[in-house]
Amino acid sequence: MIDTVRYPRLSRIQAPHELRALDESELPAVAGELRDYLIESVGRSGGHFAAGLGVIELTVALHYLYDTPVDQLVWDVGHQTYPHKILTGRRDSIHTVKQKDGVAPFPKREESEYDTFGVGHSSTSISAALGMAIARQRQGDERKTVAVIGDGAMTAGMAFEALAHAGGMDEEPNVLVILNDNNMSISEAVGGLTKMLGRATASRTLNALRDGGKKILGDKRHSPPARFVKRWEEQWKGMFVPSTAFEQMGFHYTGPIDGHDLPLLLSTLKRLKGVKGPQLLHVMTTKGKGYEPAEGDQIGYHAVGPFDPSKGLPVRNAPKKPTYTDIFSDWLCDAAAAEPQLLAITPAMREGSGLVRFSKEYPERYFDVAIAEQHAVTLAAGMATQGAKPVVAIYSTFLQRAYDQLVHDVALQELDVLFAIDRAGVVGPDGATHAGNLDLSFLRCVPNMVVMAPADEAECRQMLSTGLQHRGPAAVRYPRGTGPGVAAGSDLAPLPLGKAQRRVEGRRLAILAFGAVVPAAEQVGRDLGLTVVNMRFVKPLDRDLLLDVARSHEGLVTVEDNVVAGGAGAGISELLAAEAVVVPVLHLGLPDRFQHHASREDLLAEAGIDAAGIRTAILARWPGTGSRRPPMSAAG
Amino acid sequence: MIDTVRYPRLSRIQAPHELRALDESELPAVAGELRDYLIESVGRSGGHFAAGLGVIELTVALHYLYDTPVDQLVWDVGHQTYPHKILTGRRDSIHTVKQKDGVAPFPKREESEYDTFGVGHSSTSISAALGMAIARQRQGDERKTVAVIGDGAMTAGMAFEALAHAGGMDEEPNVLVILNDNNMSISEAVGGLTKMLGRATASRTLNALRDGGKKILGDKRHSPPARFVKRWEEQWKGMFVPSTAFEQMGFHYTGPIDGHDLPLLLSTLKRLKGVKGPQLLHVMTTKGKGYEPAEGDQIGYHAVGPFDPSKGLPVRNAPKKPTYTDIFSDWLCDAAAAEPQLLAITPAMREGSGLVRFSKEYPERYFDVAIAEQHAVTLAAGMATQGAKPVVAIYSTFLQRAYDQLVHDVALQELDVLFAIDRAGVVGPDGATHAGNLDLSFLRCVPNMVVMAPADEAECRQMLSTGLQHRGPAAVRYPRGTGPGVAAGSDLAPLPLGKAQRRVEGRRLAILAFGAVVPAAEQVGRDLGLTVVNMRFVKPLDRDLLLDVARSHEGLVTVEDNVVAGGAGAGISELLAAEAVVVPVLHLGLPDRFQHHASREDLLAEAGIDAAGIRTAILARWPGTGSRRPPMSAAG
Repeated sequence: MIDTVRYPRLSRIQAPHELRALDESELPAVAGELRDYLIESVGRSGGHFAAGLGVIELTVALHYLYDTPVDQLVWDVGHQTYPHKILTGRRDSIHTVKQKDGVAPFPKREESEYDTFGVGHSSTSISAALGMAIARQRQGDERKTVAVIGDGAMTAGMAFEALAHAGGMDEEPNVLVILNDNNMSISEAVGGLTKMLGRATASRTLNALRDGGKKILGDKRHSPPARFVKRWEEQWKGMFVPSTAFEQMGFHYTGPIDGHDLPLLLSTLKRLKGVKGPQLLHVMTTKGKGYEPAEGDQIGYHAVGPFDPSKGLPVRNAPKKPTYTDIFSDWLCDAAAAEPQLLAITPAMREGSGLVRFSKEYPERYFDVAIAEQHAVTLAAGMATQGAKPVVAIYSTFLQRAYDQLVHDVALQELDVLFAIDRAGVVGPDGATHAGNLDLSFLRCVPNMVVMAPADEAECRQMLSTGLQHRGPAAVRYPRGTGPGVAAGSDLAPLPLGKAQRRVEGRRLAILAFGAVVPAAEQVGRDLGLTVVNMRFVKPLDRDLLLDVARSHEGLVTVEDNVVAGGAGAGISELLAAEAVVVPVLHLGLPDRFQHHASREDLLAEAGIDAAGIRTAILARWPGTGSRRPPMSAAG
Repeated sequence: MIDTVRYPRLSRIQAPHELRALDESELPAVAGELRDYLIESVGRSGGHFAAGLGVIELTVALHYLYDTPVDQLVWDVGHQTYPHKILTGRRDSIHTVKQKDGVAPFPKREESEYDTFGVGHSSTSISAALGMAIARQRQGDERKTVAVIGDGAMTAGMAFEALAHAGGMDEEPNVLVILNDNNMSISEAVGGLTKMLGRATASRTLNALRDGGKKILGDKRHSPPARFVKRWEEQWKGMFVPSTAFEQMGFHYTGPIDGHDLPLLLSTLKRLKGVKGPQLLHVMTTKGKGYEPAEGDQIGYHAVGPFDPSKGLPVRNAPKKPTYTDIFSDWLCDAAAAEPQLLAITPAMREGSGLVRFSKEYPERYFDVAIAEQHAVTLAAGMATQGAKPVVAIYSTFLQRAYDQLVHDVALQELDVLFAIDRAGVVGPDGATHAGNLDLSFLRCVPNMVVMAPADEAECRQMLSTGLQHRGPAAVRYPRGTGPGVAAGSDLAPLPLGKAQRRVEGRRLAILAFGAVVPAAEQVGRDLGLTVVNMRFVKPLDRDLLLDVARSHEGLVTVEDNVVAGGAGAGISELLAAEAVVVPVLHLGLPDRFQHHASREDLLAEAGIDAAGIRTAILARWPGTGSRRPPMSAAG
């Protein structure tokens, strides 16, 4: 329970109407308590940290002035919503964030009526809010719609698409877009938009300029029409603030204002509430605001494990098992040393994708394109046409953003691009929006692709080398976190293309396993005396080995950490059908539903693709497997 | 062969170096011949028409001044490249455009070294050109890279992503982006960017304003730094031309200039060739320029069948068999009359997607969001949260652009959005970039989706009604062109969800067919005495029927016009495996390669999924099928 002494006001707020019952003069104190409470609770549980601290005042102001949930707030990239969640009924459970059955780390419609739109991927809020506003206006509904979007999220093309549409509509939509400008996306801010947003503040000289301009405009000799006087004003602002581009697109621009100045926020929002048409409010905030260590290390404090706020983040103990991300990071630098044509591209995920070391050692070969997955992939395609060897480092779930570019610009033209796909398969605490459970299905159907999934760290490195040496598009998809702990070594030797690896020779049944689930499959195979194959290649499949295994066993079990629908196992069934081989097959993989948030272990167990689950499924299909007594009967 | 009397100059130009050998004074005459030749040849063959006529002068100027193919041109949305193709070795074969083994309708790397990047989907050119320029600069290569992009293509988010990246780079890339502004994408121009680009031209008053401003800037009392004087200039331009946004993003902006004024084009391009860093040249052109009927009907003349240029497009004969697009068009208006919450969204494909009638009858419920597929889908998701019933009309291949939005914003939240997917499966003359051969694979793996494929026109209408009534995300994917000709009727009754239809009762083998290939499958089934099922639902599958059919037949044949990899047939194998049913299966569908351009009939025959191909494949697997004499042996 919340400490009523430490949090005298926040402890009385279970829902926004209780916030709205307070006098405006109390709000700065509420904001202070909310900030302290967030620091305390995220310190206890871990979670997204710096972003929430940056929007404390904004969150208080919005819920105070707007009649939520009747008025609707859309928070872009949900990791800024912990303060929102605390004020909207989840104060006492926020410490369960990211845990199984706990509070979701992003807005989630089924969790709360205050979470109007699920946002885990960035830059969707303006589109969603516009859709809401249009639908409501058509219904004669006067309720308000507000999107809060960070400057980092603004770099994605779809935010621009939404602004352009909203600003260009004949029937103006009543939507307020709040640009939360902390000059920082998850990675460092990059790109032209950032350059544009970086222009700031006036000076006496410039004020003189403005007045001079106005005087000329007011000169009767020239008698300019009123709209030019207005435009002059807009343009003057455009010299120092980024209003111009927004106003040219049809938005009314206000700002920039200090997003931590609560009275200013309140007065500005009050005014904007009464205005019709598309509005853009530019708010300057500081990520990590009010917690000094986070202000000084916004990237480090983006998302944290549990820590003691009085001490700051614990120092990482040096030698621990490397993650797959670490394996990629080291491989990339080693490969770059050997291959001068290697270039690396990230859509604003330098830290998450393991590109920090590369960005320091090879700054001129490192390209952070901001949150812009579509551009990242076609940029790579363009580079590849000139003989470069681009590596696109991307999370599985974000690759969905560049699917057309992968198909149309890379695969169709058979260009030499390597996709290093992190966070594939079961991801865990970040939940459905960050799960990588579809990539084998959406990649396997694309002609010309080579698709690999490593069973361990050493193989991950070998596969990256394989993909780099292969002439044509290739993808290596590996899971979040650590693997079984097989030392990756330092060489750059590739694997033979399309060749699987027999790991255990057994009888009757063969388990054909892909990627991260190979160790569990191997364990089950050894226990039950079954053949186990580490398939390595999802595409192309090892046809000869498959036919051999299919003809020498009574049944096949495929295992993968991708949905069964269209996944790697389906590829095996397709190949068998094409070869007119009829053999009982059992496909194990992720179910046909979105993943909730829980630990990787929990999710693998739930899906039945940990060792216990694989064993249970095999015994259910082929009872008596592994026992020496009764002859096994192939089901079917 | 080209007429040397009518085309005295063009007949001597097989490649750009022959163009470059001419004196500059001859170029307007060359442009005239090129225009006449394009009109003549497209009149003969059909093809994309108006866009090419708009860039005649630009094409001549670029190939004259740049050392192509050493310098590289990237043409956005390839349908403007017919003049480029004529000047680069394909003059005498341009009349074969879109035909099997003929010239491709879009730039194609394997067709010509002058086609530097394949562009069929729009808005990729800046990313690709930037990638080329970066890779070249790193290699110390001084060759030039130019992207030509239409204003319609500029609305897509990825163009913005690329501009922002290029403009924000520390090491400035030497890339020239030519904005070909004809104020017209395929559909009518829409959106805020268009509004922005629509600002034009100065006046005496405004010139006075500029001078006044400069005078103040020059006033010693204020002594502004030089960069403010420069910014003043930029801002002044921004009041009347769209320079500001581009310059704020880091591009040097030139224009707008008349893109049909060849001497002006030449002098401007000459100057820009010598300038470093990212450049944007804004060129105003007229689609269809020089052919009056096309100038007056740019949409009608976007892509044409063969016609007599002296007479213009033939008047359409009224009653002909309706296309699937027509079926959708009529259904949409009927459904809108019955369902006031229905809203329709198109990403700039009003004509192609069959939304012309709806846009006229229900203008307030019609949303053309410009080329912005990502935004289109999330906009629909936002609308659906408010109880609206959005219908997104989109081509199969363009849906790839919004894959993440479909997964993350619609399916994950189980929102009530209907996707009407046109040009699914085998598309034909537009080639690989417009083929719809992946959608069943990339949709089937997405949880919560209902995916339907109609066997005929009547069923298409029923499925659209089914999708609209279903609460949750649904997709109906139908082919280009006409179907078997089953009258669609006028009611809005849905089909039972997830239920297949037995069409022919036969024995031994059952053909399970999806969508457009059902009639061919039915013909083969009747000929050979086999069972034929029209599956109707790709997801969810009709489990009961499948199990019944599998247990009562010796083998199953799945047929679909999607790639076999992960397609509808794979779903049947997955279900059988899950149910431990072992039965020989033959999957027929599109092969694991990109489609080339040819007629739909040719491509279906090549893939072996027309009636002849299905019959041949069945007889190859199960020899003797249909004959009464020898007992059939199930292979495997």
